[in-house]
This record gives sequence, structure tokens and C-alpha cells, in this order.
Amino acid sequence: MAVQELEGYHGQVLQQLKKSKAKIGSILRLTSKSNEVFEGTLIPRSDYSDHTHIVLKMKNGYNIGISLDRTQKLEVIGEGEKPHFTKPSPPANHAGLPKVAIVSTGGTIASRVDYRTGAVQPALTAADLASVVPELSSIAEIDTHILFSEYSENIGPTHWKIMADEVAKRIANGAEGVVISHGTDSLHYTGAALSFAVANLPVPVLLVGAQRSSDRPSSDAAPNLTGAVALAALADMAAVGIAMHQDLSDHIVVAHRGTRVRKCHTSRRDAFKSINSEPLASYDLKTGQIEMTNGVPKRDKSRKLVVKSRFDQHAYLIKFYPGFDSGMIDSAMSRGVRGIVLEGTGLGHVSRALIDSLKKALKREVPVFMTSQTIWGRVDMNVYNTGRDLLNLGVIPLEDMISETAIVKLMWVLAQTRSASKIREMMLRPNAGDITPRTLVEAS
Amino acid sequence: MAVQELEGYHGQVLQQLKKSKAKIGSILRLTSKSNEVFEGTLIPRSDYSDHTHIVLKMKNGYNIGISLDRTQKLEVIGEGEKPHFTKPSPPANHAGLPKVAIVSTGGTIASRVDYRTGAVQPALTAADLASVVPELSSIAEIDTHILFSEYSENIGPTHWKIMADEVAKRIANGAEGVVISHGTDSLHYTGAALSFAVANLPVPVLLVGAQRSSDRPSSDAAPNLTGAVALAALADMAAVGIAMHQDLSDHIVVAHRGTRVRKCHTSRRDAFKSINSEPLASYDLKTGQIEMTNGVPKRDKSRKLVVKSRFDQHAYLIKFYPGFDSGMIDSAMSRGVRGIVLEGTGLGHVSRALIDSLKKALKREVPVFMTSQTIWGRVDMNVYNTGRDLLNLGVIPLEDMISETAIVKLMWVLAQTRSASKIREMMLRPNAGDITPRTLVEAS
Repeated sequence: MAVQELEGYHGQVLQQLKKSKAKIGSILRLTSKSNEVFEGTLIPRSDYSDHTHIVLKMKNGYNIGISLDRTQKLEVIGEGEKPHFTKPSPPANHAGLPKVAIVSTGGTIASRVDYRTGAVQPALTAADLASVVPELSSIAEIDTHILFSEYSENIGPTHWKIMADEVAKRIANGAEGVVISHGTDSLHYTGAALSFAVANLPVPVLLVGAQRSSDRPSSDAAPNLTGAVALAALADMAAVGIAMHQDLSDHIVVAHRGTRVRKCHTSRRDAFKSINSEPLASYDLKTGQIEMTNGVPKRDKSRKLVVKSRFDQHAYLIKFYPGFDSGMIDSAMSRGVRGIVLEGTGLGHVSRALIDSLKKALKREVPVFMTSQTIWGRVDMNVYNTGRDLLNLGVIPLEDMISETAIVKLMWVLAQTRSASKIREMMLRPNAGDITPRTLVEAS
Repeated sequence: MAVQELEGYHGQVLQQLKKSKAKIGSILRLTSKSNEVFEGTLIPRSDYSDHTHIVLKMKNGYNIGISLDRTQKLEVIGEGEKPHFTKPSPPANHAGLPKVAIVSTGGTIASRVDYRTGAVQPALTAADLASVVPELSSIAEIDTHILFSEYSENIGPTHWKIMADEVAKRIANGAEGVVISHGTDSLHYTGAALSFAVANLPVPVLLVGAQRSSDRPSSDAAPNLTGAVALAALADMAAVGIAMHQDLSDHIVVAHRGTRVRKCHTSRRDAFKSINSEPLASYDLKTGQIEMTNGVPKRDKSRKLVVKSRFDQHAYLIKFYPGFDSGMIDSAMSRGVRGIVLEGTGLGHVSRALIDSLKKALKREVPVFMTSQTIWGRVDMNVYNTGRDLLNLGVIPLEDMISETAIVKLMWVLAQTRSASKIREMMLRPNAGDITPRTLVEAS
């Protein structure tokens, strides 16, 4: 039946595909009006709002949507295998191995069957995750849970609370390590959130994502997950980490500190980088060797978890740039902001055009913190007059804390106190390695 | 007289310094209440609003302000040399060498005498800049101009116009290369601004800054300036570049493309990095060798400069983060925003909580562009449903353009047209290497 053979296609696009005798699974060659040529396997769509694109899975594993309007020629050049996925049987649990809970929240690592949509969708369950990487069962006794299934750009403070509470539950139930699968877009924000929300950890908590979905030959889903489970099961550490590829080679998975990491590339497998800090640990997939960084808190089953999982969204991160409208700070005030992180330039500066608005905010006891948009380095507001003027106003420099961690920490602090001085004190108090206070040696 | 000997100190701090028999130039040892020890030369202050800090110049060249409140002990441990500066005689002009105009706008590179304030101040003139680096006179016939003296965090669209017009004037007056000294905080924003504002360049324009002021042993002011002048005088290129240290070694100065560079560290000398692009050229201070990157526009004196130096500040850059209040987009609308650059996550995403506000903006013909806060990589909104939903709304992905360049370009485009379709077209049209359109090979 034509409709099933061309599942998800409609209108003009459907007519054109029929005319060319294309079916789902056919290998098509499209020539664009600008004479670009695209070859790939026709895959089905589920997105009914778009009637204008043909979606091909290309040889390199990528999907591409090509507008019919821009296509001058469409040919079937062969019949490919219809996309399919075979699920291996779930691994047997091995008694005696460390117990690791895998909690799934969505994201590319939990996405496999993108053929239905022509795009990657969160679809895989935690059990699937474990079953597609059978070698996990030789590392740990795996126990899987689906918490929710969400693209990480939609994950925010309410999800952080759910995740923190789930971590507590899994540890209470005997997990000797927790792995949380998560989309990569906001993985580092969640890493910071859990670092603050679950303190005094007895065991490690590893967030893990994938930059390439698991149906692509270059996927990092399996190695990242294997590394995360190995570190959760075996590493002598008790901290929140983000387990991702170290570099473009396949064999080292690194656990970045949850408060010291950010996604630094839109698509590369080595997108995650530790900032102003060393990673917590690494796992070599080839040798099974774990390397720990000095000073990382060690496992201690007697340690009692402290859960403070609430976050207050009245914290605003504002990136400064030349020509910035200071009225946006006034707007934040009128929207009930209770604390501001300014992402300034260089050592922690904004233009003098912002001074009046900042004064107003500070006068109304809304604390204003400073980080730097340079990403790397430490803010230092004593070097230049601008910095000193801002310090005199009451703006608080956050040392070497990154902006993403700062906004998450501020939401967490605001949920615990209304006192401006307490907020300041809590923001500056090192917590889960988020900040390194200036020492004599570093004085600059 | 005590006051001159302790210039700039007042109240309690002055009393304490007198009691310890300290003078400007004395070497002091301060012990903090937390038992940190600071040693350095006492330097004068000009900031009368602050009565609570003692400012020392430390051995490593940094100045540090230490609060009297946190000091438990203050001793004079020696008499240092009173800070002074001797100005060499200005270099003679050498006829026959290429003519290079040095235009000074302020910043660390133009700051030397920080002893008056205890902090770095923009103070040095363009002529001083040339005279402190006498070797410049063997490279080019230097002609110096002070345009203004401003910390770069205060530099914005109105200054960009002044600089663009000055570049045009210098070229009209026969400059075979233009060097602009500028603070580093917003150096890359100005680099983008000039790239757009002065097109069809016949000669190179090099912005240059310094991460360390020229009175510090580790200063990069002289090498950066030398490299910038050499590239302006000698490199066979005609583009706007930012000349800065390549790495922590002293001998390579790199010209980054004005539209493809950002400050990536608060303080390191190699803070500036080319993003998603190769630098234009490099200059080896040891050998004098210039290396050019393929495809960079070459000098051509017959080329007629096109100056479009106006910028419209009704462009807003908004960084997304989990928990972002979509009402801030509504606030921007009510403040008269005419175009938005959203700095999204990953491949170019924001949470679904923003959809309604974005719809409203787009309905009112305010174009919304997407860049990524990952810094590196290309946005691709075809991969995930979130991206496709945003595309369907009308959000426009800016390929591999960096956020800082995007907001500057949008201000420049808004000054030229009010048509939404024209704005979109101009934003996506490659200009001074700001964007690389996706090609077949890169399709993903």
C-alpha cells in the first residue's frame, strides 16, 4: 500500500515520491537546483506539520531533510535494506558484581529508532540501554529505571529535583553507583544541579550522554555508557561526574566534575571539556584501567546523603555585550528577579552604562554576581577601575566559577535563604569543587 | 610630607601605614587574618572612594589590593625603588618604509603608569606606544593618532562608527596598513564591527591589544604591537584582523579574522582564539617571517573602500539556560527590540517554554536568529524535533557564526534595512568570512 510504503509523506512530496516509484528504504539521488547532489536511503517521517521535505539517511549515518522546492531532479538509484533494529536479549544479572542503577531521562544516548521521524527522538528505555551494550553485565549488576523521557533542552529545575530525589532513592535501595542517561544540551547544567542537590555522597553518580545516536556507526553511546557504568561500579570516588569521550579516539571515557564542565562543541564527540579544573577520573575501555585525580572524595558507605533538591527560578543569567540595553536589568527587576549572574567580559567587567541599573538592583537587596564570558580563567575585579567600581557598588566576583554552574548554584541557594548576606556567603563557599578561592600563589 | 609619601591613602589605612613607617615604594609584608602573607611594593592610589585597601605591586608584576580589615599584621621589610618610567626619545621616521597609521583607543596595551592609581589605566598615547617599541621604526614609517582613551568594556556601537570612519581617513591619507590599539575585553566585538563597517579594503587593518600592561615583565604589549605593525606594513592581505600572541611562547603573533575570534581566557597571554576558522596570517618575531592562510583577500591599492559605519542597538543577544524566564523575551519586545540573537544550547535549541514568546516576536516581524553557546561548531536545527519546531516557527539558524559576531552583525544590518526578509538575507550572506554556508560535504 502506497501510504505505508511512503509513511509520513503527504501532498506534493508524496506525489513526487510516488511518481519516481520511491519506497521507504529506496536509495534516492536528489539533485538540487544549485546542482548539489544528495544520495541516501528514504526514511519515513512522523512530523505531519511539514509537507515540504524528503528525508534521506546518508551513507555517513546522518539524516538530512531536503526541500522539494529546491530539488530539480529525483531518481531511485537502488533498493536499500529497510531500516530495522534487532534488540539483543537482556543480559543476565551477575551476582557478586557491584550494583549500579541506570536511570534514563532521555537524550541522544537514549535514542535509537529515528526512522519513524527522520530525526533523533528520545525513545530508548534504560533496559534497552543496558541490553544494547551487553558487556555492561560483566562489569556490574544493572538495575534500570525510566524517570522521564525528555530532550535535555527542556530539562530544568523541576527535573533536577526529580533526579536528585531519584538518586537518593537508588542509593537508599543499595546502589553502589548511579548512572543517569541524559541529553547533552544541558548535561552540564544538570551536572552542577545534582552536585549541589545531593551532598555528602557515599557513592559516585555519573551523568552520561551521547553526541551521536546509537544507530550511527560513529555513535559514542555504547562507549560512554560503558565508561560511566565502569566508573560508577568501580572507581573509588563519591562525587557527581559527567562521563563522556575524552577525545576523538574511542577508548578513553572521562568523568568531568559536575560543577566544572561544559559542552564546547555543537557536534563533536569530544565536546565536553573540564574548565579551570582536572577531570575526576578516567576509564580506559581497552584496558579497563581507571585513573583517579588526587583529592577526589572517596567512596564511604557510612556517609549519609544530604538532599537539598529545591531550586528557585528567580535567578537570571545575563550575558553582557557592547550596546547591551541596561533596561533589561530593570525588566528583570520588575519580573521579580531575586539574584543576578552577570556574564561580563575579560576579568569581570561591564560597561558603565549598566551602573545605574545595577545600583537599583543592589539597593533593593538583589545580589549581583560576576562571571566571565571568556569561559576560562578567574575573574579579578581589582585590576582595572571598572572592576573596582563594580566591587564598590557591591557586585560579587565568583572567582573561577563558570557561568553555567553559577546560575544553577544561585537557583539552589535562593531556594534555601532570603538573606542577601547568606546568599553571598553560600555562593562563595566552595561546594562540590565549584569554586577555588584565590590563594596567595594565584594572587593577581 | 606624609601625604605625598603616601599618596592616595586616607583615613584608617593612612594612619596604619604611617604607624608602620611605610612610604610609597616601601616593600611591605602583610599578614592576613587567615594567615596568608603578601609581599610587595606599596604603590600610590588615586581612587578616593575606597579608604579600606592597601595596594601592593607584587614580584610577579601584578597589583593586589588588600583590605585593612582582613590584615592582622603590616611590616616594612625593605625599601624598594620608587616606581618610575623613563620615556625613550621618539623614533625617527624612515623614508621608503611602508606607511602604517597607529590609532590608539585605550586598553592595557595603552596603559603604563599604573602607579598613580594602583590599577591599570588607559594612559599611553599612540606616540608613546611607538616610542616604547623603538624597533617599529625599522619596520614602517609610523604615524600615530589618539582617537579616544577608553576601557574596552565601555566601547560600543558609537565608538565602532568613530573607528570605522578613522580607518577610512587613514587609508585616504595614504596609510598602507592601519593598527588600532584597543582593550582586550571587547576587542573581538570591535573586530567584527570593523569587518562589516569597512568593506572592500585595499590594505590590512589590525586591531591589537595586550593582556598584561607594558610595565610588567611578562607584558605582551611590545610583541603584539610589533607583530601588528609588521603585518599591517608587510603582509599581503586586506582584511580586518586581531593581532595577538599565538601561545605562551613569545615569538609568534597571529592575526585572527575579525569575525572569527573571541577572548577565551580572563588573563592568559594566549587568550584569543580563532573559532571555527584558521587565522588570517602569523608573524614570527624572531625571524620576521610572515605566513599567510590561503584565500585571504590580498592588498590592492586600486580597491575603493566601502564604509557603512552605522549600528542600530535595537538588537539583543539573549543567552538561554535551564529555567530561563521567557518573559524576558516579552520584555525585550516591549523595549523595542528589532532583532534577537538567541544563544541556544547544543545544535541550536531552547526549551519549549520559550515557544509562545518567540511566536509573538516573530509574528511582529522581529527576526530571531540562533547561535550556540557551545562556542565551537555549527548549529543544525534539522537533527532534533526541538530544532525543527523552532525552524518551523521561523527561527533562523546562523550556521557556524559565533554569537559575538552575530549580535554585532545584526546591529549593523538593522542600521541598513527595516525589511524582515532583507535582514534575514543579509545576516545569512557571508561577509568578511563571518559564516560558512553548509556544503554537501558537511551535510549532517
